[in-house]
Amino acid sequence: MTKIVIIGGVAGGASAAARARRLSEEAEIIMFERGPYVSFANCGLPYHIGGDITDRSKLLLQTPDSFRARFNVDVRINSTVTAINREAKTVTVTRADGSDYQEGYDKLLLSPGAAPIMPPIPGLDNPLTHSLRNIPDMDAILHTIDMNNPSHATVVGGGFIGLEMMEALHQRGIKTTLLEMADQVMTPVDREMAGFVHQTIRDQEVDLRLGTALESAEFIPTTHVASDDAGEPSEPQHLEGSLSLTLNNGDTLHTELLIMAVGVKPEVTLAQQAGLAIGEKGGIVVNSTMQTQDPDIYAVGDAVEEIDFVTHKPTLVPLAGPANRQGRMAADNMLGSTEHYLGTQGTAICKVFDLAVASVGQNEKQLKHADIDYQKVYVHAASHAGYYPGAEIVSFKLLFAPDTGAILGAQAVGKDGIDKRIDVMAVAQRAGMTVEQLQHLELTYAPPYGSAKDVINQAAFVATNLIKGDAKAIHYHELGALRDDQVLLDVRNAPERENGQYIDGDIHIPVDELRGRIDELPKDKEILIYCQVGLRGNVAYRQLVNHGFKARNLIGGYRTYKFATA
Amino acid sequence: MTKIVIIGGVAGGASAAARARRLSEEAEIIMFERGPYVSFANCGLPYHIGGDITDRSKLLLQTPDSFRARFNVDVRINSTVTAINREAKTVTVTRADGSDYQEGYDKLLLSPGAAPIMPPIPGLDNPLTHSLRNIPDMDAILHTIDMNNPSHATVVGGGFIGLEMMEALHQRGIKTTLLEMADQVMTPVDREMAGFVHQTIRDQEVDLRLGTALESAEFIPTTHVASDDAGEPSEPQHLEGSLSLTLNNGDTLHTELLIMAVGVKPEVTLAQQAGLAIGEKGGIVVNSTMQTQDPDIYAVGDAVEEIDFVTHKPTLVPLAGPANRQGRMAADNMLGSTEHYLGTQGTAICKVFDLAVASVGQNEKQLKHADIDYQKVYVHAASHAGYYPGAEIVSFKLLFAPDTGAILGAQAVGKDGIDKRIDVMAVAQRAGMTVEQLQHLELTYAPPYGSAKDVINQAAFVATNLIKGDAKAIHYHELGALRDDQVLLDVRNAPERENGQYIDGDIHIPVDELRGRIDELPKDKEILIYCQVGLRGNVAYRQLVNHGFKARNLIGGYRTYKFATA
Repeated sequence: MTKIVIIGGVAGGASAAARARRLSEEAEIIMFERGPYVSFANCGLPYHIGGDITDRSKLLLQTPDSFRARFNVDVRINSTVTAINREAKTVTVTRADGSDYQEGYDKLLLSPGAAPIMPPIPGLDNPLTHSLRNIPDMDAILHTIDMNNPSHATVVGGGFIGLEMMEALHQRGIKTTLLEMADQVMTPVDREMAGFVHQTIRDQEVDLRLGTALESAEFIPTTHVASDDAGEPSEPQHLEGSLSLTLNNGDTLHTELLIMAVGVKPEVTLAQQAGLAIGEKGGIVVNSTMQTQDPDIYAVGDAVEEIDFVTHKPTLVPLAGPANRQGRMAADNMLGSTEHYLGTQGTAICKVFDLAVASVGQNEKQLKHADIDYQKVYVHAASHAGYYPGAEIVSFKLLFAPDTGAILGAQAVGKDGIDKRIDVMAVAQRAGMTVEQLQHLELTYAPPYGSAKDVINQAAFVATNLIKGDAKAIHYHELGALRDDQVLLDVRNAPERENGQYIDGDIHIPVDELRGRIDELPKDKEILIYCQVGLRGNVAYRQLVNHGFKARNLIGGYRTYKFATA
Repeated sequence: MTKIVIIGGVAGGASAAARARRLSEEAEIIMFERGPYVSFANCGLPYHIGGDITDRSKLLLQTPDSFRARFNVDVRINSTVTAINREAKTVTVTRADGSDYQEGYDKLLLSPGAAPIMPPIPGLDNPLTHSLRNIPDMDAILHTIDMNNPSHATVVGGGFIGLEMMEALHQRGIKTTLLEMADQVMTPVDREMAGFVHQTIRDQEVDLRLGTALESAEFIPTTHVASDDAGEPSEPQHLEGSLSLTLNNGDTLHTELLIMAVGVKPEVTLAQQAGLAIGEKGGIVVNSTMQTQDPDIYAVGDAVEEIDFVTHKPTLVPLAGPANRQGRMAADNMLGSTEHYLGTQGTAICKVFDLAVASVGQNEKQLKHADIDYQKVYVHAASHAGYYPGAEIVSFKLLFAPDTGAILGAQAVGKDGIDKRIDVMAVAQRAGMTVEQLQHLELTYAPPYGSAKDVINQAAFVATNLIKGDAKAIHYHELGALRDDQVLLDVRNAPERENGQYIDGDIHIPVDELRGRIDELPKDKEILIYCQVGLRGNVAYRQLVNHGFKARNLIGGYRTYKFATA
């Protein structure tokens, strides 16, 4: 009879416990959870704060009792494992009252998760500053909002949790400032794709400040004077007040609620103390069976380093999907199977108001950093047939190997069909498809759902044209400094250029007039063509090169160029 | 200079013309279209009739003029090609006035499409009976509706066009009867999946009659008597009237508009007269480069036979996606490339009121017919995290090879996320993934978009459990006749059994009580377990077999069982 001890009762730990019981009725399964809740919906916390999920109890997917009833798992909440004694194969467990005891194991699973990073900024230790990881954190934020009724809040960090908290607070009618140290939010996508997100955030009148860091915070308490007391001022009833924030640009910001969401770091203290290897990225090292260096200790979820699907190097991917699947797999392996976790693509999506932003694989920044050769295309196409109501633009970026056409990464932003396109790319990448093969994808099509040539097919056509040499690309960031032997040609129609929507110094000939006016263009210069999204530009490009001109087409068109700086 | 002649100016033909011009400025390109319109949105026609697409001009994606301006293609509308003269390499073209002429070609592309099947039913030749293929057909239907203001319409055929027309007419406030000869609508999916569609159609108070065929129609004209004329009755102003339909069950149906939508057949007359091979399915035979037996004649779209991706046998797939991509590829090949069309999966989707129904690959009926060994699983899971508002059930069927785990087909029905799941399966199938590999798919997850374990992951888990022998399936159609050594066990909670929502003769023990009451079950009989969707059934199954019972779990649970007969 195997005795399995699990540390951590949320995504990975809870999945492992349930799976282990399904595999074996005999196994003894104990699950320790430091907090008062197990198997809660951590991804749902911001949505309860924002009011989308009104019923708090919906976030509690399982209770210790329901877990025990269904899976016969001994769930011990408010129980912190404070040491692993590998030789004795026991763990030291500290109860809420501070007393402790030893519990033996045959197999141990670490699923401790990752903790919010609290940067060493002076003044953060105050009652108006919160981070968000679990139900008590959520309750504390709601309590602060209820007590103080803030009119202004500040979120530090433009990642998933930062963006979701920004939207949640805004949705509650609280004027919100979002501070992000980098020049973009949502770092899984590249800067020019984040531009669409920046525009949407500003359209909602959130005060977005890029390239801006918090340097210090000062808590300014409000002293309540009891007005119905005879003369003597009473003690303040609770700690009300506000914060004065100093920013790295010298600005001061007055706010009444501060959410720190600059990232998370793996919880590795326990593993480290037990002498288990910690990797270069700061996560617990495991092999592909989720086993640590100690054959009886497994680890899963946000606390471990995984192998990146593209670079084959260790990475941290603190996301629920991998954690759940790893937990299930670790249970298999603790009970004698040999299942392998096959690397992480980092597939991710985030809702930002009515926009979705999603990505899979490596982004351009990462590819540059890893010194991997790449080419890229941008496509902006309708989420479904343009003539059927409700179509929205899908802005799509595809990164691929210029020699083999291997899929390196994909990013998408838009109001409809974003999850679908990135899911398609996630499958194609995992299956090892090339961009040439993507041309042949046979996706669902009816006017309410797609197009006869889907966004993905279109991106594959453009990419394959580039690989074959049937098209020659210029990218938005190369338009900055034109050489004397280059001219810029806009082939859009005149109304599209209104309100300054064009690039200075261009020649303007609509694509449908180009054949008749082709002599207006210089044969001795390189013609850099642009249209709105790149499609008409390609038509013009083919005309020009087939007439002997030297030309390149702006991939993704004016739309990519414009939002790159938003 | 290559002279390319294209017969047919819609999906495949128009794609080919545009692509050919992009590849070559020198090529002479002539496109003949029998009707007055080119490159119209044939998939959008029902939605204009139903009023979703209010602006008729949105259906005209290109005009002959716009096509000429952008692509320098000589578009000749109202021009019917009546003969191909292969030796002379010319076609005979008949103008609208009946005169004709010869036009030479170097390469000829046939993209004539498929025509609605008009079964030999007596009485169909009347002014109230229509089919829907093109803009004039759509205009004629709208004209009939405007003139006669029908209160009742009948649609014959429950395929894509039949279902879309049913919805369009219903949406216009016309009481509608849908006659379908088979025992299900939407034959690309299997009967039990169509059950969800039947339920939705009936919920909308459409008069759905399955297993019912039209035997004859009789037109009953209404004679108008001009009331302001002095005595003499005038001639009827236009042909008003109604229809009396006789059905194969002897019933009579009175209706005022009849839409025939029993299917389409490839337009092969021209190819046949030219001596080109017609295949067993009735389509033009082409090789993988879309070339007919004549090396200078290519054919694409609804008129050709394609190779099925699963069976590797010829099939007809009259859908826009393949037509468009084949057209593009034929242009490449006519101009000297060698691009291969890599078989058709038949990926399809249809909107039926608020439901989407979609499929890819082979269905169970086809697999049986082709004598291909298969196993299947059903999963009913939320389209996104259940605790986030707006989640809908995705009902999903996965067909796979029981030995290799190869993906044979997939079907899905529901109100949200159906296109996404079938697209994921279409990519996975094309890439040659197995169901074991589907377990590892890393799909986008955030509460508004998905689940940490997506429907597809879940289906893959169930399928892999079956392949590994970790689960043993019973299917809904095997529950009809229990043997003496079998008992049925419902592990749902009591409220789920209310209103007769259970299978007669079962034992009822909720899953969370099962461990304590396991002795109530007979050890000498096979326990056939069911729950609502199969998940708790699996938990119970694992408990029972780990306690030494013989058991099977109803895959897809009571929900599959119930809708199979809807």
